[in-house]
Amino acid sequence: MQVSEPQDDQRAPAPVRRLRADQARRVADLIRHQIHAGAFGDVLPSEQQLAAEHDASRNTVREALTLLKDEGLIDRLPKVGTRVAARKYDHGLDALLGLQETFQGHGTVRNEVRAALRISAPPAVARRLGLAAGARVVYLERLRYLAELPLSLDLTYLTPEIGDQVLDHDLASTDIFVLLEQISGQRLGSADLSLEAVAADPHTAATLDVPAAAPLLMLERLTRLDDGTPVDLEFIRMRGDRITMRGNLTRTNPEWKVI
Amino acid sequence: MQVSEPQDDQRAPAPVRRLRADQARRVADLIRHQIHAGAFGDVLPSEQQLAAEHDASRNTVREALTLLKDEGLIDRLPKVGTRVAARKYDHGLDALLGLQETFQGHGTVRNEVRAALRISAPPAVARRLGLAAGARVVYLERLRYLAELPLSLDLTYLTPEIGDQVLDHDLASTDIFVLLEQISGQRLGSADLSLEAVAADPHTAATLDVPAAAPLLMLERLTRLDDGTPVDLEFIRMRGDRITMRGNLTRTNPEWKVI
Repeated sequence: MQVSEPQDDQRAPAPVRRLRADQARRVADLIRHQIHAGAFGDVLPSEQQLAAEHDASRNTVREALTLLKDEGLIDRLPKVGTRVAARKYDHGLDALLGLQETFQGHGTVRNEVRAALRISAPPAVARRLGLAAGARVVYLERLRYLAELPLSLDLTYLTPEIGDQVLDHDLASTDIFVLLEQISGQRLGSADLSLEAVAADPHTAATLDVPAAAPLLMLERLTRLDDGTPVDLEFIRMRGDRITMRGNLTRTNPEWKVI
Repeated sequence: MQVSEPQDDQRAPAPVRRLRADQARRVADLIRHQIHAGAFGDVLPSEQQLAAEHDASRNTVREALTLLKDEGLIDRLPKVGTRVAARKYDHGLDALLGLQETFQGHGTVRNEVRAALRISAPPAVARRLGLAAGARVVYLERLRYLAELPLSLDLTYLTPEIGDQVLDHDLASTDIFVLLEQISGQRLGSADLSLEAVAADPHTAATLDVPAAAPLLMLERLTRLDDGTPVDLEFIRMRGDRITMRGNLTRTNPEWKVI
Protein backbone atom coordinates (compact mmCIF):
# COMPACT_ATOMS: atom_id res chain seq x y z
CA MET A 1 0.00 0.00 0.00
CA GLN A 2 3.00 2.25 0.35
CA VAL A 3 4.16 1.98 -3.25
CA SER A 4 3.82 4.65 -5.89
CA GLU A 5 2.04 3.82 -9.14
CA PRO A 6 5.05 2.91 -11.32
CA GLN A 7 5.88 0.06 -8.94
CA ASP A 8 2.36 -1.13 -8.37
CA ASP A 9 2.92 -4.29 -10.40
CA GLN A 10 4.69 -5.44 -7.24
CA ARG A 11 1.41 -5.66 -5.41
CA ALA A 12 -1.02 -6.63 -8.15
CA PRO A 13 -0.79 -9.56 -10.52
CA ALA A 14 -2.65 -7.67 -13.27
CA PRO A 15 -1.16 -8.08 -16.73
CA VAL A 16 1.02 -5.16 -17.87
CA ARG A 17 -1.18 -4.36 -20.85
CA ARG A 18 -4.23 -3.97 -18.63
CA LEU A 19 -2.34 -1.76 -16.25
CA ARG A 20 -1.20 0.54 -19.01
CA ALA A 21 -4.76 1.01 -20.26
CA ASP A 22 -5.88 1.80 -16.72
CA GLN A 23 -3.07 4.28 -16.24
CA ALA A 24 -3.73 5.81 -19.65
CA ARG A 25 -7.37 6.41 -18.68
CA ARG A 26 -6.29 8.01 -15.45
CA VAL A 27 -3.83 10.32 -17.20
CA ALA A 28 -6.33 11.11 -19.98
CA ASP A 29 -8.90 12.30 -17.42
CA LEU A 30 -6.42 14.76 -15.95
CA ILE A 31 -5.28 16.07 -19.33
CA ARG A 32 -8.93 16.39 -20.41
CA HIS A 33 -9.58 18.49 -17.36
CA GLN A 34 -6.58 20.68 -18.10
CA ILE A 35 -7.67 21.17 -21.72
CA HIS A 36 -11.17 22.24 -20.65
CA ALA A 37 -9.70 24.56 -18.05
CA GLY A 38 -7.50 26.16 -20.73
CA ALA A 39 -4.31 25.19 -18.87
CA PHE A 40 -2.30 24.57 -22.03
CA GLY A 41 -3.33 27.20 -24.55
CA ASP A 42 -3.51 25.69 -28.04
CA VAL A 43 -0.55 23.30 -27.94
CA LEU A 44 -0.01 20.58 -25.36
CA PRO A 45 3.36 20.02 -23.67
CA SER A 46 5.59 17.31 -25.20
CA GLU A 47 5.04 13.65 -24.39
CA GLN A 48 8.18 13.79 -22.30
CA GLN A 49 6.92 16.73 -20.24
CA LEU A 50 3.52 15.11 -19.78
CA ALA A 51 5.20 11.86 -18.73
CA ALA A 52 7.20 13.69 -16.08
CA GLU A 53 4.16 15.64 -14.90
CA HIS A 54 2.12 12.47 -14.49
CA ASP A 55 4.90 10.22 -13.22
CA ALA A 56 4.02 7.87 -16.09
CA SER A 57 5.85 6.23 -18.97
CA ARG A 58 5.85 7.82 -22.42
CA ASN A 59 3.91 4.83 -23.71
CA THR A 60 1.19 5.51 -21.15
CA VAL A 61 1.07 9.18 -22.13
CA ARG A 62 0.91 8.22 -25.80
CA GLU A 63 -2.02 5.93 -25.08
CA ALA A 64 -3.75 8.65 -23.04
CA LEU A 65 -3.37 11.08 -25.95
CA THR A 66 -4.84 8.48 -28.29
CA LEU A 67 -7.93 8.29 -26.07
CA LEU A 68 -8.32 12.06 -26.22
CA LYS A 69 -7.75 12.06 -29.97
CA ASP A 70 -10.49 9.45 -30.36
CA GLU A 71 -12.80 11.77 -28.41
CA GLY A 72 -12.05 14.50 -30.95
CA LEU A 73 -10.46 16.67 -28.30
CA ILE A 74 -6.93 16.89 -29.73
CA ASP A 75 -5.08 16.56 -33.04
CA ARG A 76 -1.64 15.03 -33.27
CA LEU A 77 0.42 16.49 -36.09
CA PRO A 78 3.92 15.42 -37.06
CA LYS A 79 6.44 18.15 -36.16
CA VAL A 80 3.76 20.47 -34.74
CA GLY A 81 2.92 18.21 -31.81
CA THR A 82 -0.38 17.82 -30.03
CA ARG A 83 -2.94 20.56 -30.55
CA VAL A 84 -6.21 21.27 -28.83
CA ALA A 85 -8.87 20.59 -31.49
CA ALA A 86 -11.99 21.34 -29.50
CA ARG A 87 -12.72 22.94 -26.19
CA LYS A 88 -16.16 22.35 -24.76
CA TYR A 89 -18.59 25.05 -23.75
CA ASP A 90 -19.68 25.16 -20.13
CA HIS A 91 -23.39 25.23 -19.45
CA GLY A 92 -24.56 26.00 -15.93
CA LEU A 93 -26.42 23.19 -14.23
CA ASP A 94 -27.54 25.44 -11.43
CA ALA A 95 -28.68 28.39 -13.52
CA LEU A 96 -31.89 28.89 -15.42
CA LEU A 97 -30.17 30.61 -18.29
CA GLY A 98 -31.02 30.42 -21.95
CA LEU A 99 -28.31 29.44 -24.41
CA GLN A 100 -27.89 32.94 -25.73
CA GLU A 101 -27.29 34.39 -22.29
CA THR A 102 -24.96 31.52 -21.39
CA PHE A 103 -22.77 31.81 -24.44
CA GLN A 104 -22.57 35.56 -24.76
CA GLY A 105 -19.16 36.30 -26.17
CA HIS A 106 -18.61 32.77 -27.50
CA GLY A 107 -20.41 33.31 -30.80
CA THR A 108 -23.93 33.79 -32.07
CA VAL A 109 -26.72 31.44 -31.04
CA ARG A 110 -29.09 30.83 -33.93
CA ASN A 111 -32.21 28.66 -33.81
CA GLU A 112 -33.50 26.80 -36.83
CA VAL A 113 -37.19 26.44 -36.07
CA ARG A 114 -38.21 23.01 -37.38
CA ALA A 115 -41.70 22.99 -35.93
CA ALA A 116 -43.91 25.55 -34.18
CA LEU A 117 -47.43 24.25 -33.85
CA ARG A 118 -50.37 23.60 -31.59
CA ILE A 119 -50.91 19.94 -30.77
CA SER A 120 -53.14 18.11 -28.36
CA ALA A 121 -51.14 17.18 -25.28
CA PRO A 122 -50.42 13.47 -24.82
CA PRO A 123 -51.20 12.38 -21.22
CA ALA A 124 -47.51 12.38 -20.23
CA VAL A 125 -47.21 16.04 -21.25
CA ALA A 126 -50.57 17.15 -19.89
CA ARG A 127 -49.86 15.64 -16.49
CA ARG A 128 -46.52 17.38 -16.10
CA LEU A 129 -47.83 20.74 -17.30
CA GLY A 130 -50.85 20.47 -15.00
CA LEU A 131 -53.34 20.39 -17.89
CA ALA A 132 -56.24 18.09 -18.77
CA ALA A 133 -55.29 15.26 -21.13
CA GLY A 134 -55.94 16.36 -24.70
CA ALA A 135 -55.56 20.07 -23.89
CA ARG A 136 -53.89 22.06 -26.63
CA VAL A 137 -50.24 22.84 -26.06
CA VAL A 138 -47.69 24.63 -28.18
CA TYR A 139 -44.94 22.40 -29.50
CA LEU A 140 -41.62 23.78 -30.72
CA GLU A 141 -38.73 21.97 -32.27
CA ARG A 142 -35.52 23.93 -32.65
CA LEU A 143 -32.09 22.99 -33.89
CA ARG A 144 -29.75 25.33 -32.08
CA TYR A 145 -26.45 26.49 -33.48
CA LEU A 146 -23.57 28.12 -31.68
CA ALA A 147 -20.91 29.70 -33.88
CA GLU A 148 -22.56 28.01 -36.89
CA LEU A 149 -22.18 24.45 -35.58
CA PRO A 150 -25.17 22.47 -34.26
CA LEU A 151 -25.20 22.40 -30.48
CA SER A 152 -28.54 20.89 -29.50
CA LEU A 153 -31.93 19.74 -30.71
CA ASP A 154 -34.66 21.04 -28.39
CA LEU A 155 -38.21 19.67 -28.20
CA THR A 156 -40.40 22.04 -26.17
CA TYR A 157 -43.99 21.87 -24.90
CA LEU A 158 -45.52 25.10 -23.60
CA THR A 159 -48.80 25.70 -21.79
CA PRO A 160 -51.43 27.22 -24.11
CA GLU A 161 -51.76 30.82 -22.84
CA ILE A 162 -48.06 31.52 -22.75
CA GLY A 163 -47.28 29.29 -25.71
CA ASP A 164 -49.71 31.14 -27.98
CA GLN A 165 -47.89 34.38 -27.32
CA VAL A 166 -44.48 32.76 -27.72
CA LEU A 167 -45.52 31.85 -31.28
CA ASP A 168 -45.85 35.57 -32.08
CA HIS A 169 -42.17 36.21 -31.34
CA ASP A 170 -38.96 35.76 -33.26
CA LEU A 171 -37.97 32.25 -32.24
CA ALA A 172 -34.88 32.16 -34.44
CA SER A 173 -32.92 34.52 -32.26
CA THR A 174 -34.62 34.68 -28.84
CA ASP A 175 -34.29 32.28 -25.89
CA ILE A 176 -37.61 30.79 -24.74
CA PHE A 177 -36.71 31.59 -21.11
CA VAL A 178 -36.54 35.29 -21.94
CA LEU A 179 -39.94 35.13 -23.64
CA LEU A 180 -41.50 33.21 -20.73
CA GLU A 181 -40.52 35.96 -18.33
CA GLN A 182 -41.57 38.75 -20.69
CA ILE A 183 -44.95 37.23 -21.41
CA SER A 184 -45.80 36.08 -17.88
CA GLY A 185 -44.44 39.18 -16.17
CA GLN A 186 -42.90 36.76 -13.64
CA ARG A 187 -39.44 35.45 -13.13
CA LEU A 188 -38.75 31.77 -13.55
CA GLY A 189 -39.05 29.90 -10.28
CA SER A 190 -37.81 26.32 -10.18
CA ALA A 191 -37.04 23.40 -12.44
CA ASP A 192 -36.95 19.61 -12.23
CA LEU A 193 -34.30 18.17 -14.43
CA SER A 194 -32.82 14.87 -15.41
CA LEU A 195 -29.65 14.17 -17.35
CA GLU A 196 -28.76 11.03 -19.25
CA ALA A 197 -26.08 9.92 -21.70
CA VAL A 198 -27.65 8.41 -24.81
CA ALA A 199 -26.36 7.34 -28.20
CA ALA A 200 -27.59 9.40 -31.15
CA ASP A 201 -30.04 7.49 -33.34
CA PRO A 202 -29.20 7.81 -37.05
CA HIS A 203 -31.74 10.57 -37.81
CA THR A 204 -30.77 12.65 -34.78
CA ALA A 205 -27.08 12.12 -35.60
CA ALA A 206 -27.62 13.47 -39.12
CA THR A 207 -29.55 16.44 -37.73
CA LEU A 208 -26.85 17.32 -35.21
CA ASP A 209 -24.07 16.56 -37.72
CA VAL A 210 -22.35 13.90 -35.62
CA PRO A 211 -21.56 10.25 -36.41
CA ALA A 212 -24.35 7.75 -35.73
CA ALA A 213 -24.31 6.54 -32.11
CA ALA A 214 -22.29 9.56 -30.99
CA PRO A 215 -22.80 10.28 -27.28
CA LEU A 216 -25.42 12.91 -26.47
CA LEU A 217 -26.24 14.55 -23.19
CA MET A 218 -30.01 14.35 -22.87
CA LEU A 219 -31.63 16.92 -20.60
CA GLU A 220 -35.27 16.73 -19.63
CA ARG A 221 -36.43 19.84 -17.80
CA LEU A 222 -39.77 21.02 -16.41
CA THR A 223 -39.64 24.73 -15.62
CA ARG A 224 -42.07 26.62 -13.43
CA LEU A 225 -42.83 30.29 -12.98
CA ASP A 226 -42.11 31.97 -9.68
CA ASP A 227 -45.67 31.23 -8.50
CA GLY A 228 -45.11 27.51 -9.06
CA THR A 229 -47.09 27.15 -12.31
CA PRO A 230 -45.40 24.68 -14.67
CA VAL A 231 -45.09 26.26 -18.12
CA ASP A 232 -42.30 24.63 -20.10
CA LEU A 233 -41.43 20.95 -20.61
CA GLU A 234 -38.30 20.32 -22.66
CA PHE A 235 -36.38 17.38 -24.07
CA ILE A 236 -32.96 18.64 -25.11
CA ARG A 237 -30.30 16.57 -26.88
CA MET A 238 -26.89 18.22 -26.62
CA ARG A 239 -23.85 17.16 -28.57
CA GLY A 240 -21.56 15.40 -26.13
CA ASP A 241 -18.49 16.81 -27.82
CA ARG A 242 -19.59 20.43 -27.39
CA ILE A 243 -21.14 20.78 -23.93
CA THR A 244 -20.12 20.25 -20.34
CA MET A 245 -22.78 20.85 -17.68
CA ARG A 246 -21.29 22.43 -14.59
CA GLY A 247 -22.68 23.11 -11.17
CA ASN A 248 -21.65 24.13 -7.72
CA LEU A 249 -23.72 22.64 -4.97
CA THR A 250 -23.71 23.80 -1.39
CA ARG A 251 -25.38 22.64 1.74
CA THR A 252 -27.40 25.84 1.89
CA ASN A 253 -29.45 24.47 -0.98
CA PRO A 254 -32.59 23.22 0.77
CA GLU A 255 -32.64 20.20 -1.56
CA TRP A 256 -29.17 19.21 -0.50
CA LYS A 257 -29.32 16.06 1.57
CA VAL A 258 -26.12 15.37 3.40
CA ILE A 259 -25.89 11.89 4.87
CA MET B 1 -49.56 27.72 -37.09
CA GLN B 2 -53.07 26.57 -36.16
CA VAL B 3 -52.69 23.04 -37.48
CA SER B 4 -52.19 19.97 -35.37
CA GLU B 5 -49.20 17.77 -36.00
CA PRO B 6 -50.71 15.19 -38.38
CA GLN B 7 -51.43 17.97 -40.86
CA ASP B 8 -48.20 19.88 -40.49
CA ASP B 9 -46.97 18.82 -43.90
CA GLN B 10 -49.31 21.59 -45.08
CA ARG B 11 -46.99 24.20 -43.69
CA ALA B 12 -43.59 22.62 -44.18
CA PRO B 13 -42.12 21.23 -47.37
CA ALA B 14 -40.12 18.62 -45.44
CA PRO B 15 -40.20 15.13 -46.98
CA VAL B 16 -42.58 12.68 -45.29
CA ARG B 17 -39.78 10.35 -44.26
CA ARG B 18 -38.02 13.10 -42.35
CA LEU B 19 -41.21 14.13 -40.64
CA ARG B 20 -41.92 10.63 -39.45
CA ALA B 21 -38.45 10.32 -37.90
CA ASP B 22 -38.98 13.65 -36.16
CA GLN B 23 -42.35 12.58 -34.83
CA ALA B 24 -40.97 9.20 -33.80
CA ARG B 25 -38.26 10.94 -31.77
CA ARG B 26 -40.85 13.15 -30.13
CA VAL B 27 -43.06 10.19 -29.21
CA ALA B 28 -40.05 8.12 -28.07
CA ASP B 29 -39.04 10.84 -25.59
CA LEU B 30 -42.47 10.79 -23.98
CA ILE B 31 -42.65 7.00 -23.80
CA ARG B 32 -39.11 6.93 -22.35
CA HIS B 33 -40.23 9.31 -19.67
CA GLN B 34 -43.26 7.16 -18.90
CA ILE B 35 -41.13 4.01 -18.67
CA HIS B 36 -38.69 5.66 -16.23
CA ALA B 37 -41.62 6.97 -14.20
CA GLY B 38 -43.05 3.44 -14.01
CA ALA B 39 -46.27 4.52 -15.73
CA PHE B 40 -46.75 1.25 -17.58
CA GLY B 41 -45.65 -1.52 -15.26
CA ASP B 42 -43.82 -4.21 -17.19
CA VAL B 43 -45.78 -4.29 -20.44
CA LEU B 44 -46.43 -1.29 -22.67
CA PRO B 45 -49.87 -0.53 -24.11
CA SER B 46 -50.53 -1.76 -27.66
CA GLU B 47 -49.28 0.17 -30.67
CA GLN B 48 -52.87 1.16 -31.33
CA GLN B 49 -53.35 2.58 -27.82
CA LEU B 50 -50.03 4.41 -27.99
CA ALA B 51 -50.97 5.83 -31.39
CA ALA B 52 -54.23 7.17 -29.97
CA GLU B 53 -52.51 8.56 -26.88
CA HIS B 54 -49.93 10.41 -28.95
CA ASP B 55 -52.21 11.43 -31.81
CA ALA B 56 -49.71 9.74 -34.13
CA SER B 57 -49.85 7.05 -36.80
CA ARG B 58 -49.05 3.43 -35.96
CA ASN B 59 -46.00 3.66 -38.21
CA THR B 60 -44.71 6.57 -36.14
CA VAL B 61 -45.30 4.64 -32.91
CA ARG B 62 -43.56 1.59 -34.35
CA GLU B 63 -40.56 3.73 -35.26
CA ALA B 64 -40.54 5.31 -31.79
CA LEU B 65 -40.53 1.84 -30.21
CA THR B 66 -37.63 0.85 -32.48
CA LEU B 67 -35.64 3.80 -31.13
CA LEU B 68 -36.31 2.69 -27.55
CA LYS B 69 -35.47 -0.90 -28.42
CA ASP B 70 -32.15 0.25 -29.87
CA GLU B 71 -31.47 2.04 -26.57
CA GLY B 72 -32.00 -1.30 -24.80
CA LEU B 73 -34.99 0.05 -22.93
CA ILE B 74 -37.66 -2.31 -24.27
CA ASP B 75 -38.02 -5.76 -25.82
CA ARG B 76 -40.54 -6.50 -28.50
CA LEU B 77 -41.78 -10.07 -28.44
CA PRO B 78 -44.25 -11.60 -30.87
CA LYS B 79 -47.61 -12.24 -29.17
CA VAL B 80 -46.39 -10.90 -25.79
CA GLY B 81 -46.05 -7.32 -27.01
CA THR B 82 -43.63 -4.66 -25.86
CA ARG B 83 -41.97 -5.22 -22.51
CA VAL B 84 -39.87 -2.93 -20.35
CA ALA B 85 -36.36 -4.42 -20.46
CA ALA B 86 -34.51 -1.94 -18.30
CA ARG B 87 -35.51 0.85 -15.99
CA LYS B 88 -32.78 3.27 -15.03
CA TYR B 89 -31.76 4.10 -11.51
CA ASP B 90 -32.15 7.71 -10.37
CA HIS B 91 -29.11 9.35 -8.85
CA GLY B 92 -29.60 12.70 -7.11
CA LEU B 93 -27.76 15.58 -8.70
CA ASP B 94 -28.42 17.81 -5.74
CA ALA B 95 -27.47 15.39 -2.99
CA LEU B 96 -24.06 14.40 -1.70
CA LEU B 97 -25.03 10.79 -1.25
CA GLY B 98 -22.88 7.74 -1.78
CA LEU B 99 -24.11 5.01 -4.09
CA GLN B 100 -24.98 2.68 -1.28
CA GLU B 101 -27.17 5.23 0.47
CA THR B 102 -28.77 6.21 -2.86
CA PHE B 103 -29.67 2.72 -3.93
CA GLN B 104 -30.78 1.29 -0.63
CA GLY B 105 -33.52 -1.17 -1.42
CA HIS B 106 -32.52 -1.53 -5.09
CA GLY B 107 -29.87 -4.18 -4.53
CA THR B 108 -26.43 -4.49 -3.03
CA VAL B 109 -23.65 -2.08 -3.97
CA ARG B 110 -20.34 -3.89 -4.19
CA ASN B 111 -17.00 -2.26 -5.02
CA GLU B 112 -14.24 -4.13 -6.79
CA VAL B 113 -11.11 -2.27 -5.65
CA ARG B 114 -8.77 -2.20 -8.66
CA ALA B 115 -6.20 0.14 -7.13
CA ALA B 116 -5.59 1.62 -3.68
CA LEU B 117 -2.22 3.32 -3.54
CA ARG B 118 -0.26 6.39 -2.69
CA ILE B 119 0.94 8.36 -5.69
CA SER B 120 2.58 11.71 -6.14
CA ALA B 121 -0.09 14.23 -7.19
CA PRO B 122 0.16 15.51 -10.76
CA PRO B 123 -0.16 19.31 -10.85
CA ALA B 124 -3.80 19.17 -11.99
CA VAL B 125 -4.73 17.10 -8.96
CA ALA B 126 -2.53 18.99 -6.49
CA ARG B 127 -4.00 22.32 -7.53
CA ARG B 128 -7.59 21.23 -7.07
CA LEU B 129 -6.92 19.55 -3.73
CA GLY B 130 -5.01 22.59 -2.48
CA LEU B 131 -1.72 20.68 -2.18
CA ALA B 132 1.81 21.38 -3.40
CA ALA B 133 2.65 19.74 -6.73
CA GLY B 134 4.19 16.35 -6.11
CA ALA B 135 2.54 15.92 -2.71
CA ARG B 136 1.49 12.39 -1.97
CA VAL B 137 -2.18 11.62 -2.46
CA VAL B 138 -4.17 8.44 -2.14
CA TYR B 139 -5.50 7.09 -5.40
CA LEU B 140 -8.39 4.64 -5.55
CA GLU B 141 -9.90 2.93 -8.52
CA ARG B 142 -13.15 1.10 -7.95
CA LEU B 143 -15.48 -0.74 -10.26
CA ARG B 144 -18.87 -0.42 -8.64
CA TYR B 145 -21.62 -2.97 -9.03
CA LEU B 146 -25.29 -2.59 -8.27
CA ALA B 147 -27.30 -5.82 -8.15
CA GLU B 148 -24.26 -7.64 -9.63
CA LEU B 149 -24.07 -5.51 -12.81
CA PRO B 150 -21.34 -2.90 -13.31
CA LEU B 151 -22.67 0.59 -12.70
CA SER B 152 -19.64 2.87 -12.70
CA LEU B 153 -15.86 3.04 -12.74
CA ASP B 154 -14.64 5.57 -10.15
CA LEU B 155 -11.18 7.15 -10.08
CA THR B 156 -10.65 8.95 -6.78
CA TYR B 157 -7.88 11.18 -5.41
CA LEU B 158 -7.89 11.87 -1.67
CA THR B 159 -5.80 14.29 0.38
CA PRO B 160 -3.05 12.46 2.32
CA GLU B 161 -4.23 12.72 5.95
CA ILE B 162 -7.76 11.54 5.27
CA GLY B 163 -6.73 9.25 2.43
CA ASP B 164 -4.27 7.33 4.60
CA GLN B 165 -7.04 6.51 7.03
CA VAL B 166 -9.46 5.62 4.23
CA LEU B 167 -6.99 2.91 3.16
CA ASP B 168 -7.45 1.20 6.53
CA HIS B 169 -11.16 0.66 5.93
CA ASP B 170 -13.18 -1.88 4.03
CA LEU B 171 -13.48 -0.22 0.63
CA ALA B 172 -15.38 -3.09 -0.95
CA SER B 173 -18.59 -2.35 0.87
CA THR B 174 -18.37 1.22 2.23
CA ASP B 175 -19.06 4.52 0.44
CA ILE B 176 -16.13 6.95 0.47
CA PHE B 177 -18.47 9.77 1.52
CA VAL B 178 -19.35 7.91 4.70
CA LEU B 179 -15.65 7.36 5.47
CA LEU B 180 -14.81 11.02 4.79
CA GLU B 181 -17.32 12.14 7.38
CA GLN B 182 -16.32 9.50 9.91
CA ILE B 183 -12.61 10.22 9.61
CA SER B 184 -12.82 14.02 9.48
CA GLY B 185 -15.53 14.31 12.10
CA GLN B 186 -17.13 16.89 9.80
CA ARG B 187 -20.05 16.74 7.45
CA LEU B 188 -19.46 17.22 3.76
CA GLY B 189 -19.87 20.83 2.71
CA SER B 190 -20.01 21.58 -0.99
CA ALA B 191 -19.02 20.12 -4.33
CA ASP B 192 -18.13 21.40 -7.80
CA LEU B 193 -19.26 19.04 -10.47
CA SER B 194 -19.28 18.68 -14.20
CA LEU B 195 -21.19 16.21 -16.33
CA GLU B 196 -20.40 15.12 -19.86
CA ALA B 197 -21.56 12.44 -22.26
CA VAL B 198 -18.61 10.48 -23.63
CA ALA B 199 -18.22 7.31 -25.67
CA ALA B 200 -16.62 4.38 -23.85
CA ASP B 201 -13.11 3.61 -25.09
CA PRO B 202 -12.58 -0.12 -25.74
CA HIS B 203 -10.83 -0.86 -22.44
CA THR B 204 -13.40 1.02 -20.36
CA ALA B 205 -16.22 -0.62 -22.31
CA ALA B 206 -14.83 -4.07 -21.51
CA THR B 207 -14.47 -3.10 -17.84
CA LEU B 208 -18.04 -1.81 -17.58
CA ASP B 209 -19.38 -4.68 -19.71
CA VAL B 210 -20.93 -2.48 -22.41
CA PRO B 211 -20.32 -2.38 -26.18
CA ALA B 212 -17.37 -0.26 -27.33
CA ALA B 213 -18.40 3.40 -27.83
CA ALA B 214 -21.44 2.97 -25.60
CA PRO B 215 -22.55 6.32 -24.11
CA LEU B 216 -21.27 7.02 -20.61
CA LEU B 217 -22.18 9.80 -18.23
CA MET B 218 -18.89 11.19 -17.00
CA LEU B 219 -19.01 13.01 -13.66
CA GLU B 220 -16.08 14.99 -12.34
CA ARG B 221 -16.59 16.09 -8.76
CA LEU B 222 -14.48 17.97 -6.22
CA THR B 223 -15.93 17.58 -2.75
CA ARG B 224 -15.11 19.75 0.26
CA LEU B 225 -15.63 19.32 3.97
CA ASP B 226 -17.95 21.64 5.82
CA ASP B 227 -15.02 23.96 6.64
CA GLY B 228 -14.25 24.36 2.92
CA THR B 229 -11.20 22.05 2.74
CA PRO B 230 -11.15 20.11 -0.55
CA VAL B 231 -10.60 16.42 0.18
CA ASP B 232 -11.91 14.29 -2.66
CA LEU B 233 -11.47 14.64 -6.44
CA GLU B 234 -13.31 12.06 -8.51
CA PHE B 235 -13.67 11.05 -12.14
CA ILE B 236 -16.68 8.77 -12.40
CA ARG B 237 -17.81 6.97 -15.56
CA MET B 238 -21.40 5.80 -15.24
CA ARG B 239 -23.09 3.44 -17.66
CA GLY B 240 -25.50 5.54 -19.67
CA ASP B 241 -28.03 2.73 -19.78
CA ARG B 242 -28.23 2.38 -15.99
CA ILE B 243 -28.21 5.88 -14.51
CA THR B 244 -30.29 9.04 -14.74
CA MET B 245 -29.05 12.05 -12.78
CA ARG B 246 -31.95 14.02 -11.33
CA GLY B 247 -32.17 17.32 -9.59
CA ASN B 248 -34.64 19.88 -8.42
CA LEU B 249 -33.37 23.42 -8.56
CA THR B 250 -35.01 26.36 -6.90
CA ARG B 251 -34.35 30.06 -6.87
CA THR B 252 -33.52 29.87 -3.17
CA ASN B 253 -30.27 28.21 -4.18
CA PRO B 254 -27.78 31.07 -3.90
CA GLU B 255 -26.01 29.84 -7.03
CA TRP B 256 -29.18 30.07 -9.03
CA LYS B 257 -28.91 32.89 -11.51
CA VAL B 258 -32.19 33.88 -13.03
CA ILE B 259 -31.88 36.18 -16.01
